[in-house]
Amino acid sequence: MFEPKFFWHGADYNFEQWLDYPNVLTRDIELMKAARCNVMSIGIFSWAMLEPVEGEYEFGWMDGLMDRLAENEIGAILATPSAAKPAWMSQSYPEIRLVDEYGRRHPHHLRHNHCPTSPIYRQKVRQINTLLAERYRDHPALMMWHVSNEYGNQNCRCELCLQAFREWLQMRYGSLDAVNKAWWTAFWSHRYTDWSQIEPVDPSVHGLMLDWMRFVSDQVLDFYLAEKEPLQEITPNVPVTTNFMWPNVGLDYWTFASHVDVISWDSYPRWHSEIEDWRLAADTAFFHDLHRSYQQRPFLLMESTPSVTNWQGVSRPKRPGMHVLASLQAVAHGANSVQYFQWRQSRGGAEKFHGAVVSHAGREQTRTFQEVTAVGELLARLGPVLESVNQADVAIIYDLQNEWALDMAQLPRNKDKNYQERCLAHYRQFWQQGVTVDIINSNFTEFSNYKLVVAPMLYLLQEGVAEWLCEYVQAGGTLVTTYLTGVVNQSDLVFMGGSPGPLKDLLGIWVEETDVLFDHHQQTIQLTNKTLSGANYPVKHYADIVHSQGAEVFAVYEQDFYAGSPAITVNQFGKGRAYYLAARYDDGFLTDFYGWLAKMLGLKTAIVHPLPRGVTAQVRTKDTEKFIFLLNFEPIPQTIKLDVPAAVDALSEQVITDAFTIAGYGFRILKLARGIV
Amino acid sequence: MFEPKFFWHGADYNFEQWLDYPNVLTRDIELMKAARCNVMSIGIFSWAMLEPVEGEYEFGWMDGLMDRLAENEIGAILATPSAAKPAWMSQSYPEIRLVDEYGRRHPHHLRHNHCPTSPIYRQKVRQINTLLAERYRDHPALMMWHVSNEYGNQNCRCELCLQAFREWLQMRYGSLDAVNKAWWTAFWSHRYTDWSQIEPVDPSVHGLMLDWMRFVSDQVLDFYLAEKEPLQEITPNVPVTTNFMWPNVGLDYWTFASHVDVISWDSYPRWHSEIEDWRLAADTAFFHDLHRSYQQRPFLLMESTPSVTNWQGVSRPKRPGMHVLASLQAVAHGANSVQYFQWRQSRGGAEKFHGAVVSHAGREQTRTFQEVTAVGELLARLGPVLESVNQADVAIIYDLQNEWALDMAQLPRNKDKNYQERCLAHYRQFWQQGVTVDIINSNFTEFSNYKLVVAPMLYLLQEGVAEWLCEYVQAGGTLVTTYLTGVVNQSDLVFMGGSPGPLKDLLGIWVEETDVLFDHHQQTIQLTNKTLSGANYPVKHYADIVHSQGAEVFAVYEQDFYAGSPAITVNQFGKGRAYYLAARYDDGFLTDFYGWLAKMLGLKTAIVHPLPRGVTAQVRTKDTEKFIFLLNFEPIPQTIKLDVPAAVDALSEQVITDAFTIAGYGFRILKLARGIV
Amino acid sequence: MFEPKFFWHGADYNFEQWLDYPNVLTRDIELMKAARCNVMSIGIFSWAMLEPVEGEYEFGWMDGLMDRLAENEIGAILATPSAAKPAWMSQSYPEIRLVDEYGRRHPHHLRHNHCPTSPIYRQKVRQINTLLAERYRDHPALMMWHVSNEYGNQNCRCELCLQAFREWLQMRYGSLDAVNKAWWTAFWSHRYTDWSQIEPVDPSVHGLMLDWMRFVSDQVLDFYLAEKEPLQEITPNVPVTTNFMWPNVGLDYWTFASHVDVISWDSYPRWHSEIEDWRLAADTAFFHDLHRSYQQRPFLLMESTPSVTNWQGVSRPKRPGMHVLASLQAVAHGANSVQYFQWRQSRGGAEKFHGAVVSHAGREQTRTFQEVTAVGELLARLGPVLESVNQADVAIIYDLQNEWALDMAQLPRNKDKNYQERCLAHYRQFWQQGVTVDIINSNFTEFSNYKLVVAPMLYLLQEGVAEWLCEYVQAGGTLVTTYLTGVVNQSDLVFMGGSPGPLKDLLGIWVEETDVLFDHHQQTIQLTNKTLSGANYPVKHYADIVHSQGAEVFAVYEQDFYAGSPAITVNQFGKGRAYYLAARYDDGFLTDFYGWLAKMLGLKTAIVHPLPRGVTAQVRTKDTEKFIFLLNFEPIPQTIKLDVPAAVDALSEQVITDAFTIAGYGFRILKLARGIV
Repeated sequence: MFEPKFFWHGADYNFEQWLDYPNVLTRDIELMKAARCNVMSIGIFSWAMLEPVEGEYEFGWMDGLMDRLAENEIGAILATPSAAKPAWMSQSYPEIRLVDEYGRRHPHHLRHNHCPTSPIYRQKVRQINTLLAERYRDHPALMMWHVSNEYGNQNCRCELCLQAFREWLQMRYGSLDAVNKAWWTAFWSHRYTDWSQIEPVDPSVHGLMLDWMRFVSDQVLDFYLAEKEPLQEITPNVPVTTNFMWPNVGLDYWTFASHVDVISWDSYPRWHSEIEDWRLAADTAFFHDLHRSYQQRPFLLMESTPSVTNWQGVSRPKRPGMHVLASLQAVAHGANSVQYFQWRQSRGGAEKFHGAVVSHAGREQTRTFQEVTAVGELLARLGPVLESVNQADVAIIYDLQNEWALDMAQLPRNKDKNYQERCLAHYRQFWQQGVTVDIINSNFTEFSNYKLVVAPMLYLLQEGVAEWLCEYVQAGGTLVTTYLTGVVNQSDLVFMGGSPGPLKDLLGIWVEETDVLFDHHQQTIQLTNKTLSGANYPVKHYADIVHSQGAEVFAVYEQDFYAGSPAITVNQFGKGRAYYLAARYDDGFLTDFYGWLAKMLGLKTAIVHPLPRGVTAQVRTKDTEKFIFLLNFEPIPQTIKLDVPAAVDALSEQVITDAFTIAGYGFRILKLARGIV
Repeated sequence: MFEPKFFWHGADYNFEQWLDYPNVLTRDIELMKAARCNVMSIGIFSWAMLEPVEGEYEFGWMDGLMDRLAENEIGAILATPSAAKPAWMSQSYPEIRLVDEYGRRHPHHLRHNHCPTSPIYRQKVRQINTLLAERYRDHPALMMWHVSNEYGNQNCRCELCLQAFREWLQMRYGSLDAVNKAWWTAFWSHRYTDWSQIEPVDPSVHGLMLDWMRFVSDQVLDFYLAEKEPLQEITPNVPVTTNFMWPNVGLDYWTFASHVDVISWDSYPRWHSEIEDWRLAADTAFFHDLHRSYQQRPFLLMESTPSVTNWQGVSRPKRPGMHVLASLQAVAHGANSVQYFQWRQSRGGAEKFHGAVVSHAGREQTRTFQEVTAVGELLARLGPVLESVNQADVAIIYDLQNEWALDMAQLPRNKDKNYQERCLAHYRQFWQQGVTVDIINSNFTEFSNYKLVVAPMLYLLQEGVAEWLCEYVQAGGTLVTTYLTGVVNQSDLVFMGGSPGPLKDLLGIWVEETDVLFDHHQQTIQLTNKTLSGANYPVKHYADIVHSQGAEVFAVYEQDFYAGSPAITVNQFGKGRAYYLAARYDDGFLTDFYGWLAKMLGLKTAIVHPLPRGVTAQVRTKDTEKFIFLLNFEPIPQTIKLDVPAAVDALSEQVITDAFTIAGYGFRILKLARGIV
Repeated sequence: MFEPKFFWHGADYNFEQWLDYPNVLTRDIELMKAARCNVMSIGIFSWAMLEPVEGEYEFGWMDGLMDRLAENEIGAILATPSAAKPAWMSQSYPEIRLVDEYGRRHPHHLRHNHCPTSPIYRQKVRQINTLLAERYRDHPALMMWHVSNEYGNQNCRCELCLQAFREWLQMRYGSLDAVNKAWWTAFWSHRYTDWSQIEPVDPSVHGLMLDWMRFVSDQVLDFYLAEKEPLQEITPNVPVTTNFMWPNVGLDYWTFASHVDVISWDSYPRWHSEIEDWRLAADTAFFHDLHRSYQQRPFLLMESTPSVTNWQGVSRPKRPGMHVLASLQAVAHGANSVQYFQWRQSRGGAEKFHGAVVSHAGREQTRTFQEVTAVGELLARLGPVLESVNQADVAIIYDLQNEWALDMAQLPRNKDKNYQERCLAHYRQFWQQGVTVDIINSNFTEFSNYKLVVAPMLYLLQEGVAEWLCEYVQAGGTLVTTYLTGVVNQSDLVFMGGSPGPLKDLLGIWVEETDVLFDHHQQTIQLTNKTLSGANYPVKHYADIVHSQGAEVFAVYEQDFYAGSPAITVNQFGKGRAYYLAARYDDGFLTDFYGWLAKMLGLKTAIVHPLPRGVTAQVRTKDTEKFIFLLNFEPIPQTIKLDVPAAVDALSEQVITDAFTIAGYGFRILKLARGIV
């Protein structure tokens, strides 16, 4: 486990693109100092420049770069170059290129398209990684390993991968008979009689396709572990990471997470776009919290853009203030670094118009450069925040394998399943209240600290999950779950007896059928007591028709043939309570519901007074004090009322005793002695 | 030809999925009795369970199932398993898997993807079919053969299929020169000089592609006939069917129809969706009538869902009453069975969330189970209806080869050709009036019983069709046809002299050009006399500019440069009359027009009084009495006025003398002595 | 260089489709005379009819056709048949069929899908072309060669093409090191170490893909030159053309243009569709002007439809008058012919419903035939116009390689780059004023005649372009350019220092960043002096944030954080001025701006009085007189005021002294002595 000694500020520096430009390095170092950068990620796509001919190496330029960084007290996050192989390698060893679902071997193009199983490719990677580690093991610039880049779903169908998949299945199931049962292969006459018949080409056998996705994720992890091995051997004291992405790339990051020394990720929200900034801010907060939760520790923001991207259709320059605000947001949710892609804009290739700290203009007199510098200065002043952590009363379950299975499910309503979007909707309610949330996997077991666990649409129950949810509520916890929960087991087989499967006792209900609604259909609910102030909350998309078997009816439907039947139930189970939201509700309901629940359960909030729309408050705590980050994602100034008699502005050390205003896209960091509020 | 002795009620029972569940069969038989089921379709996808290893058979479970069904007086509709081949067979005999248009042989996946020509696959199918027939030839449960399942367009491009296609062409055309002429191959230098040059890969040679579609249809029929051969030899007294689908699957069901002992089909309307239920009901009625018309005899409803589907994007549970109503609708239009897919919901695979009689919950205390039971009880009480038939005054031509040719045609307006939709629009007018309609193929020749034949958009005239249409009108019949009629011959060659080709004399017109309208363009028509009450009927999409050569002008255009020219003509021809609707009109016009025409021609209606919107009346007649099915497809109650002094409620035997009300999604069946009304 | 002696009027005559119809030729000749046709394009797709078996020829039918045309004084534009190869050739020589991006060799189908490199195909083409040239060298009907048909982007990836590409690169760059630098291959580790590694399969290496597009264009040109060689040798006095299309087919027609004796093109505007006719007319005018500008000489309209097309989704018949108007429009912009696709409608194949002079009805009593005849008669009376030319004060740069590079560019806003559409928008302003415009390539150097050069979005600056633009302005010219100009060099490498690259001094600005706007964002500009009458002109999509370095600020932004910064600048440079439109403006602004600029620069207009909307005036000039074509593209009559005391109607020879009216879709041609106005 790794913790930085100061906030990191830096960027991807693809210096290999500038070897023909003699003055660039000197100029760049000068600009890096000006922008208060202290780390650079280097060498990410440099294999062709390090090993231009098989077995012949050119480390000279890298030596020079490392030396110059060290001389200037800039740390190097040194990458292994496996994300893009040289052309000569693709040509000499065709078997390292992945085979797609049509059986076509990819040409040499783009990046990230190697076979994750190929022994030759693994050997080549081990070789270059070993050379790098041996060469720079004692170099003062070396701060961390950046293994490869943005691993994705290397969905290769070559014979080697298929063979590895069959071995993976043999490990998982033992016998072919067990596979046939788990995958329900009697359906459409799919029973396998020999392992060699198994190919991941059948969208009608959901168990097969789900296991294939798991296998690919495991195989990429295995590739990563092979990459890491020589690094750990040669430089046991240098921490190792690899940069994660948004969680929809086909990897189960929950498994991956325990194999890196620190989580790092690349965050690219599209500010100022079709959705309001404050909603995007809440979504982005979810992903920051997710990355903090992978290891329940602070993380690194390995990439973000200092201005625009060039691959999102339309990407607007960040308005003044937004870059500092977005960078601070990462810190507020647990980041101990702010890093960019990239330092200097390329002259050619597909990413040449991606924003960079140093633009094509090559000047420091740009708004972007000035705002990056402002972040650097700010981070330098936030030293005391570094050892603080985020502490949550609430956990939301976001299970990636559940997402894969749900995406694949053929339901009466297939449109708008929106699993991730629903997790974000539940999350948003807490963000607006300034309540810290952890995002957890369904098989996470250290739940005793949470007052509330929310599990939207937990369709697939992995082994043990029903048990721990029961234990958690039994012991006094509160669980909120929804329609489409407890439907299938880990093999995507429906539970006998129907949903909510093994959660029937916990929830005290059974589901008879599910109404699905078109957009023009109307359904509303009414609360059985006046707990919440609103009325006639609308229903969308899904509405379970539920029978209580002991649960109390919290709300009923108002329309259609199932009017009067339960729309929300709550079941006392042991010392705790379990809520079932039988239908899909919008933000209006969720805000009221979670506002009420937060009060009921006494959830910790950063600021008790309601926050204006678009302002959130996030807390990082350490032994003696805590820091409240107040972030305003609206373009207009907003006023905040204090809950406490006095707080200290963490930057100016000024004492605040009154309401104060935060500028549009502005922020304020308060420091309080721990225990206040 | 086969006729059941009682109304059949049942479902697909995929028992092979439950062999590991010891109590399921007993429980299922108990539930089948409860739901008043008397037939089950079995073994449809069971090849891998019957022949797990090549040449090694496991019939034990099937024996047990057949015995239990027989003991409980439930008939078996026994399937041949060719729709899904075992994995070992795909592996050992790759040539049985179809080759797609890119020359790729399909992997083993999904279902229905065998080569229809492969001698090996045909031999394997003959083998298993022979074994099934020999084993169960005298089994008391065996009621009917269900050959394969939902044959589709097995569009295989392997060398064997290409060779078979060339032989098919040699049979059809005799010489290559005849092929070149029929396909107009001088266009773009496409002339063939050797049979081996012919491949179905050229979208620019429409004659070629149309013949390829015909060949594929014929080849699938040939495959079916080969499947059927051993069954007929071994069990000459057991009727044979195969389940049809909506007619857009690339098979010419009109040809297929004469080779089954009874028509059966799978009907999956999407109730409660984007279009109003009553419109969908009219469309569904068309398809039921189509399936009755294939053989001009009652048919079986082989599949329907008892609740929802899971493959239609959004499929809403049927509202209370709808299941009974939809089932009765099939009966009203000539079905002698109501059957479901499927009996028990699967635990795994792509169809596990498709509705079933027994849901995952496994209980009879569900709305679905109760409504299925209600259908069972109703069918038991409808015995007297069984021998009745539907008799039509009106026929609508719906020619599938015409649809293929039209779909392929490159017209000045290619958007919204909508051939099937237009047939439905014309049909809907009769459905609303309670006028029985047959749907016929263009080459159907027993037309003398019809007072009216409607032929929308009969673009392609097969050999002889022009002649019989002339004969029909000559002898006193009335024909209504439209724009885009009589354009090409059976080879998709335009008639010399332009459209309406050989129908020019019959219609008394020639078409100079065709205006095509965007949605924002306006055109209307005016009737030359006040025959219809409406005015300024609007025109959409297509408007022929027509010259009369003897026809009377029934309506003229009102706008644009061709204002005043004929929009509708009618030509006296022999003892009959032929109408030409030169443009596309909407329901407003069609309702007025067909209302007027029905009166003019004295078409039989079930109820003379106008029916409320959404209510239809369909009649089944036998020697001494007739049954009027009054079906209300609106969710609200509606009142029906009687035309006759008294009628008998066929279920309650109560005498009705007054107007009465039918509940929302409700029905009433009246019994009248034949000759009344 | 070739100039016809009279206006040509004719069509594609695909007589090879009618060899089995004995009376067609006689009838067609009769109709051609009736329609005043004097040329026919023949033999375009006739290879299979000329050489049905390899090495066996059937020229008899072609001899007969040529003789009959000559007897009737109808000229033959004789095609070489390479656009569609015979089936036997595809079968015997598979290597002549192109290989697509997935490595699949095309089957024999469609047309235009040969490999442009294949030595065998080139040899076969040379053989047939030689035979045609030798046979008809002295035939009196032979007027011109029509080489192949609508060459397109023969994007073949076979080994021969890849090899030819590598040789093309060696010629262009000399060394692999130069390639690596030009393509910035250090990006994503793409450095090539052997020529054989280069394949055009990498969308991330923009330089590679741009060079591939250039190579394909050059290779098709090379194929054309090989086709032309025997024709030139055998018939040195017969002019050679090939028919161009809209410029988006992947060929750089600017290069092609110098290799034909006369430009000819196929124009298919979709009249009466979603956009107003007058806007479409302006767009069509642009393309006519483009084709005139390719050689700065009159051109031929080789194809147009006499009524509808059948490949444009919805293609409406031309309203009365429109056919004559559209034909005259071509003449007004420099066409010396009006020709059609096609003479007689085919009976079969994909184009059988494309409009033709002789429709399937086969009669002359059709509106289409009559309007075609009217064009024939009109052209016969326009003899004096033949030697006149169009003279322009204004040039718009439309660079096809710039379009390719822009299409490929990954920008912060990728939606709606709309390069061609923007060129059309600037053009439209001049069209409305009756100002003649040339369309030029960016490397066109004979610019001294232009008072104004407009260069929208000139993203890529080919070698020398910056220099000549500077020279042009230095010498007194006026330049208008926009955002996204001067960004990359000819290898798609961004200019060091950012945009506008080498145009910084000329424009007196530098661009710091570019705001991109969603449709819901608002930005407007305000003029710094009251030059234009309008206010608050809106901005869309792109808005550069610009710093003046000497340029005068002509307008500033009004909103957002960059309010007050320059939105339009103008820089005095030498004797001229250079405008920079920093953002995308709509027609409202462009109309005001170019109206003002036209007055400032004293641009020649055909008619000084403002023209009514939808009416344009185009001028063809010769020694002593000039012809003003007044064309009304609105369906309503419009009144024109004369600028001169008197003019002569070129058709009626009537003297006009007053305002006059032009009918809807009507026209008037005025004749003035040169020098008037």
